[in-house]
Amino acid sequence: MSTRIESDFLGKKEIPNDAYYGVQTERALENFHITGIPLKAEPFFVQALGFVKKAAAMANRDLGVLDPAIAEKIIAASDKVINGDYDSQFLSDMIQGGAGTSVNMNANEVIANVALELMGKEKGEYEFCHPNDHVNCSQSTNDAYPTAFRIALINKLSRYKQTLAALTESFAAKGKEFKDVLKMGRTQLQDAVPMSLGDEFRAFATNLHEEQARIEDSKKLIAEINMGATAIGTSVNAPEGYAQLVTKHLRDVTGLELVLASDLIEATYDAGAYVQLSGVLKRTAVKISKICNDLRLLSSGPRCGLNEINLPPMQPGSSIMPGKVNPVIPEVVNQTAFYVIGADLTVTLAAEAGQLQLNVMEPVLSFALFSSITYMENACKTLKEKCVDGITANPEVTKKMVMNSIGIVTQLNPILGYKQCAGIAREALETGKSVHDIVVIEKQLLTQEKWDEVFTFENMISPKFIK
Amino acid sequence: MSTRIESDFLGKKEIPNDAYYGVQTERALENFHITGIPLKAEPFFVQALGFVKKAAAMANRDLGVLDPAIAEKIIAASDKVINGDYDSQFLSDMIQGGAGTSVNMNANEVIANVALELMGKEKGEYEFCHPNDHVNCSQSTNDAYPTAFRIALINKLSRYKQTLAALTESFAAKGKEFKDVLKMGRTQLQDAVPMSLGDEFRAFATNLHEEQARIEDSKKLIAEINMGATAIGTSVNAPEGYAQLVTKHLRDVTGLELVLASDLIEATYDAGAYVQLSGVLKRTAVKISKICNDLRLLSSGPRCGLNEINLPPMQPGSSIMPGKVNPVIPEVVNQTAFYVIGADLTVTLAAEAGQLQLNVMEPVLSFALFSSITYMENACKTLKEKCVDGITANPEVTKKMVMNSIGIVTQLNPILGYKQCAGIAREALETGKSVHDIVVIEKQLLTQEKWDEVFTFENMISPKFIK
Amino acid sequence: MSTRIESDFLGKKEIPNDAYYGVQTERALENFHITGIPLKAEPFFVQALGFVKKAAAMANRDLGVLDPAIAEKIIAASDKVINGDYDSQFLSDMIQGGAGTSVNMNANEVIANVALELMGKEKGEYEFCHPNDHVNCSQSTNDAYPTAFRIALINKLSRYKQTLAALTESFAAKGKEFKDVLKMGRTQLQDAVPMSLGDEFRAFATNLHEEQARIEDSKKLIAEINMGATAIGTSVNAPEGYAQLVTKHLRDVTGLELVLASDLIEATYDAGAYVQLSGVLKRTAVKISKICNDLRLLSSGPRCGLNEINLPPMQPGSSIMPGKVNPVIPEVVNQTAFYVIGADLTVTLAAEAGQLQLNVMEPVLSFALFSSITYMENACKTLKEKCVDGITANPEVTKKMVMNSIGIVTQLNPILGYKQCAGIAREALETGKSVHDIVVIEKQLLTQEKWDEVFTFENMISPKFIK
Amino acid sequence: MSTRIESDFLGKKEIPNDAYYGVQTERALENFHITGIPLKAEPFFVQALGFVKKAAAMANRDLGVLDPAIAEKIIAASDKVINGDYDSQFLSDMIQGGAGTSVNMNANEVIANVALELMGKEKGEYEFCHPNDHVNCSQSTNDAYPTAFRIALINKLSRYKQTLAALTESFAAKGKEFKDVLKMGRTQLQDAVPMSLGDEFRAFATNLHEEQARIEDSKKLIAEINMGATAIGTSVNAPEGYAQLVTKHLRDVTGLELVLASDLIEATYDAGAYVQLSGVLKRTAVKISKICNDLRLLSSGPRCGLNEINLPPMQPGSSIMPGKVNPVIPEVVNQTAFYVIGADLTVTLAAEAGQLQLNVMEPVLSFALFSSITYMENACKTLKEKCVDGITANPEVTKKMVMNSIGIVTQLNPILGYKQCAGIAREALETGKSVHDIVVIEKQLLTQEKWDEVFTFENMISPKFIK
Repeated sequence: MSTRIESDFLGKKEIPNDAYYGVQTERALENFHITGIPLKAEPFFVQALGFVKKAAAMANRDLGVLDPAIAEKIIAASDKVINGDYDSQFLSDMIQGGAGTSVNMNANEVIANVALELMGKEKGEYEFCHPNDHVNCSQSTNDAYPTAFRIALINKLSRYKQTLAALTESFAAKGKEFKDVLKMGRTQLQDAVPMSLGDEFRAFATNLHEEQARIEDSKKLIAEINMGATAIGTSVNAPEGYAQLVTKHLRDVTGLELVLASDLIEATYDAGAYVQLSGVLKRTAVKISKICNDLRLLSSGPRCGLNEINLPPMQPGSSIMPGKVNPVIPEVVNQTAFYVIGADLTVTLAAEAGQLQLNVMEPVLSFALFSSITYMENACKTLKEKCVDGITANPEVTKKMVMNSIGIVTQLNPILGYKQCAGIAREALETGKSVHDIVVIEKQLLTQEKWDEVFTFENMISPKFIK
Repeated sequence: MSTRIESDFLGKKEIPNDAYYGVQTERALENFHITGIPLKAEPFFVQALGFVKKAAAMANRDLGVLDPAIAEKIIAASDKVINGDYDSQFLSDMIQGGAGTSVNMNANEVIANVALELMGKEKGEYEFCHPNDHVNCSQSTNDAYPTAFRIALINKLSRYKQTLAALTESFAAKGKEFKDVLKMGRTQLQDAVPMSLGDEFRAFATNLHEEQARIEDSKKLIAEINMGATAIGTSVNAPEGYAQLVTKHLRDVTGLELVLASDLIEATYDAGAYVQLSGVLKRTAVKISKICNDLRLLSSGPRCGLNEINLPPMQPGSSIMPGKVNPVIPEVVNQTAFYVIGADLTVTLAAEAGQLQLNVMEPVLSFALFSSITYMENACKTLKEKCVDGITANPEVTKKMVMNSIGIVTQLNPILGYKQCAGIAREALETGKSVHDIVVIEKQLLTQEKWDEVFTFENMISPKFIK
Repeated sequence: MSTRIESDFLGKKEIPNDAYYGVQTERALENFHITGIPLKAEPFFVQALGFVKKAAAMANRDLGVLDPAIAEKIIAASDKVINGDYDSQFLSDMIQGGAGTSVNMNANEVIANVALELMGKEKGEYEFCHPNDHVNCSQSTNDAYPTAFRIALINKLSRYKQTLAALTESFAAKGKEFKDVLKMGRTQLQDAVPMSLGDEFRAFATNLHEEQARIEDSKKLIAEINMGATAIGTSVNAPEGYAQLVTKHLRDVTGLELVLASDLIEATYDAGAYVQLSGVLKRTAVKISKICNDLRLLSSGPRCGLNEINLPPMQPGSSIMPGKVNPVIPEVVNQTAFYVIGADLTVTLAAEAGQLQLNVMEPVLSFALFSSITYMENACKTLKEKCVDGITANPEVTKKMVMNSIGIVTQLNPILGYKQCAGIAREALETGKSVHDIVVIEKQLLTQEKWDEVFTFENMISPKFIK
Repeated sequence: MSTRIESDFLGKKEIPNDAYYGVQTERALENFHITGIPLKAEPFFVQALGFVKKAAAMANRDLGVLDPAIAEKIIAASDKVINGDYDSQFLSDMIQGGAGTSVNMNANEVIANVALELMGKEKGEYEFCHPNDHVNCSQSTNDAYPTAFRIALINKLSRYKQTLAALTESFAAKGKEFKDVLKMGRTQLQDAVPMSLGDEFRAFATNLHEEQARIEDSKKLIAEINMGATAIGTSVNAPEGYAQLVTKHLRDVTGLELVLASDLIEATYDAGAYVQLSGVLKRTAVKISKICNDLRLLSSGPRCGLNEINLPPMQPGSSIMPGKVNPVIPEVVNQTAFYVIGADLTVTLAAEAGQLQLNVMEPVLSFALFSSITYMENACKTLKEKCVDGITANPEVTKKMVMNSIGIVTQLNPILGYKQCAGIAREALETGKSVHDIVVIEKQLLTQEKWDEVFTFENMISPKFIK
């Protein structure tokens, strides 16, 4: 393997000649071996680094602090990074020390070397295009890194939101499909009052639909960037007007509604937007986990459980029990939710650990948030395609349970009063008789006609007040 | 102690004659001994139960399902509860089983008995005003309880937000007071570049100011109520038009912008708004904890630490070390934050544990959220009054550190380039010399005039780009 | 109210004349208003402070650093504190800043004043018995406070462990009572293979029985104390031999197997034993929550659920649904578990926040651990007495489910092979037929005799291998 | 690509002909796309599956329920899997639904096909060696999977423990190296009393040394396996004596002290050992995070921080600030700790979600625990090699801080009393004078000789009691 020599103020290093990264990335590769998951596993992030470097070069060129000829090559090189051509060169471990310096330098080095080749120079001839002086011009890791992180998050969230919306639609469609299926509603796992299975599924849709608005809210907080802050928010080494201009260029190149933070010192260390976003991801995870618990409960059985619905069978459920089919898709989604809830704690801890002018824990914030979004997106897609879309109902089973239940006595409250109804319920429970038999036949508290008026299908799933 | 006998469908119970609560509250007192903290510890909640019962009676009266004479007495009795006159009668443990039934019945029973006395009847003569048939008319625990909980949260949040705003103001005032104090900015605990201590404190204010908007966002989600849902959201036993009307009355009696949920089935089990609110409380806790860590770090010493600021001494800091004074107020606030972050996990777990048509874990949700808001409010007030308001700066100490630092070399980047500056930094570190001496005297890279132009106070706290 | 004047190096304070605490406690009462829960809410802690002060006075007397006459009065005063006579004087908020200094000084001041009265002096005449120089002699908050905390924990754990053991016994007794109740086992909520209800309850007992050993393990870690460490573990101001001697005295006065830490510098800041203990409390909470989930599931219905067991009815379950009875006791236990899991996070955060020679977050550690143990103890007692002891089975229901199930086909695997059994299962599922009818009548794969040999009660709950 | 057709009771599937896995693994590959991390990423787990299948075949052979000829081929095939030869065939996503059925079937299928080839048959000719009937004979996923998981954990923990021990040694070595470096001890970030830097590092070693015992404790709990439990612990389909025999064989083939659980029903669902282990991993993470916080604090500066120690410079610390070197190694370790603490929550949630006879969430338990151990091991190795081993001290800096401090006044307590010392401290603080000057020169409370007697190096790092 042929190599070149690069150096920084800590000394010299051999770099593989075909590598576009340089000495500082090489040090990072030596220093950080935690997850084994490289930066390139998150292409949105690599792309966003390209966006940042491109916009910075444009602003630096416009403000006269960067030679236009060099700027154009940096812009061209950044476009290639944006395009994904150099994903293979982003190799730092997803968790690193240094508050993202290794990631920012990885981008600076790759773009410098790509630019050098575009100039007809050799990789490493940094006097013509330097990772720090040119590519990183008017920037610090402390503004470039979080800005790229935020752009990647927004783009990733947009895709995730679509997947979540499709899942929501799937529940809504089942809500319509099951609207005439009468079933027992349950509170505290005890029989309560009747309802429609369609309403139960529509409620799942409502429940998840709200999450889309929460994601949008979070994106607005994430869209506040701190370009031009440089090292600590005092904008040291950035030319006048740079912060506004680079933000404008970044809006243009990304097509996103990015906003410059009003207090750059605060914005440079604040991790509040990540905590908020993570809380929203967790909230959705909590909701989806509850829904999956319900799906597993409603499909329990087939003979010794509720058996109200059937999930599509995906695989044999047991290596020993023949014919057993398990709710494997809701199960994997529950587990994904547990991961996301755990990752939210990681985010919380990392956010709290910020000190003074910076939060050095941003890499683990990015690791936790990127993986949570990825896993949630995968889980939503899986849940929709491999489960919800194929759910069927057992309307005969559910109707029989309702008519056999004691819970329907609640509907007689306005006619007979809570106390008498409680007595009827008690008798039914103790004797095993049906409410109908006690009320209509035995005690003759209602005529059969009145009974039939109260207990229509319509009146059970959407009760009218009858006195 | 004289007693009366009350009964429900499980049997009879002796109730102290001076008690306004009845048999179901008595059972709850026997059943639940977990925290030892009674409901009355949260007066906002007792008051909110009064609001709900009052609005329900008004709607029931208007819709003709409740005798107007009884309704008026229930309204009058509710007003007394709202006024706090019967706080002592709300004794259920803050954590109970039953999804709040004990709390709702506690309110129903107290209001029924107060109403009975207003009618000139004896407590317990429920044929004239019954806890279930009259006070709870058109309601279920599953709508009345969460609605009261939400009203209490909103009122509690409003007071907390004011306290938080006052703390924010205190930081902002210090930001102005310290605007001319030059100090070293630090990233990763390493010397970075200079800044103003005023900017550091203003950033604290910015950081917390954002929380007020997040609290308002959460309040909007909390303001969505499900009155009229009754047992599971099908509105069984509620008269036509009731849900809308009771919501309107509730808006009037509370003065809050309450909104009726569009999907009552979903709203009856959904805990999403609590998760969101808890996430916001946690976010503020995370931020305040970071700020307190900074305050403790900046005031460390006095001789062997940073010693940049002085916190007001509140108490002798040691039983053995004479003269030691510790940052006890930030410390107690850090600990409060840890409690709140823990409570957020409790909220998460309880939210995930909802099943089918109800989340039975609402009592622990209320316990966790009420205590978090109370503790946060107390912590903010304590931090403001006993710490931030009295902080003073050590401007001579901080200025000396800046001028003695290596970090100021960053400001020479645009003039000398990153690489040469790195060499100067290295020499300073290895020899102990000052950057000034190396640059101006030894290597004569800058004249003293140029040096003075770059390193003005103004240019250090708010650097101009000088090439 | 008559007052006396006390002073410390921060100035003078008026103290109520009947107060046994002094100026530093007074400052703490002014400084810390977070939880509103005073120290005296945890009598084990107040008692433990008495133990520590008594043992220290004994050691100081023996080593000649404390006048024997003063020592005797301190010992006598400590005995009164141990006895609970002065609980009312321990008023500091459970969460304070200062790493417990306020708590230690509260003890020092109360004991000094009690000792003064025993000497015939007035409260506040500290020249005769001084909170710092005499009561706190050879101690620092940093050894006295954690030692008292640990003693309190051990005593509290011993009582909790007994309660947990009683709950375990209750499950074991039900295990025996239900040994002949045949029921369907379920995995992933799907019908699996038959078992005995007795085995299910015995397994609950086994599950909780293990926790007692874990509690004992934790107590051993907690029993490592750092008396004699003084400020940071260097034993500054403690006489030669003091650490060993005070530990011996403390063993004697408490009757506990306390051990002196081998590395006092480490022991003075280490919070590892608290993390371990909290993890064990959490583990038990996780297990009990799972068990309560099972109890709620098994008792679901009565008509539209599993209905395998009956929990004793504790209270009417609904303000609207007559006759509804809910599993309120398991529900309140689930919620307690969520609190404990949340508190474990608080402990984790506080432990991680230790810095250099001390963990200043010990007060919130004590708040979280004390409340967790109290709540768990209450929950275990409640669960036993108000639920488990009264559980009954529905053996006809459970047997019918087994015989009607498809899951019993597993038992034919060794005879018919997995593949053929899977075919039978599939046919049963699709046609609604019973396994028996398919195997014996329709396909005649087994004779009725063979069937009866395989499906005996004994062979279903404790299967023999039959080929 | 040539394929073969395989089928299960859900239908047929095309399988790549070179694949050793079969139809059920293929379904798993289609069903589960969450993490993208395949099973083979954890070779200890693949190996452990081989151990389980080998031991089961041995026991089945011995008990006559498996044809010896087939058994020998299964054993030979298992040996190849143990040897890592077929790692590439273990492709299921680390998180799956189905409680590990996909993993167990992946092993069953690979081993069946390898065995078939050893018999001279084609892959897929399962009549000669069937994944269920032969490889999985006398097993269920519910015993084979957790047993393999536990074996993998034990082996993984053993390697991790060595790495942790090496880190501990490194701290201990520094403890000796720095034993003569006098420095200021700090509590609550305030100057306390002097100590030796060596003692500070030895305490780090002590702190971590305890973790090795905790890991061993956890391994004992993990070593309790449930082979022979089959589906739910009733041992259905397992021959008499199998459980004991397979456990014995498993001990032999693994060399581990595995123990058969006494209550197989409980053992089949219990996740307590995972919760305990995760708590221990978290505890170590908490401790290491605290240590890394200290290392970062002690090395803060170089000019505007504590500057007591120097961490080896690993990489340029800033893309903008020349010469800045950051504590990147402790930073990455802090972040690893945050991951592990988050993963512990995932474990807690998954453990609590067990239901009835099984905990279906085991795959996410394995994912969380395996990644936590891997990351912790990597972090320990990194911290040792790239940081601790190379730490140097700044003894002149630390000594100067001590002699200039006010905290040394504590040492005069026994001579001058707490109150007078507090006055001296106060004067020093207010005037900026040194304690020495006030005590010896100005107030002449001590002679210079007495001062020198008290403030020897020995007496400052390991104080004698001097009155």
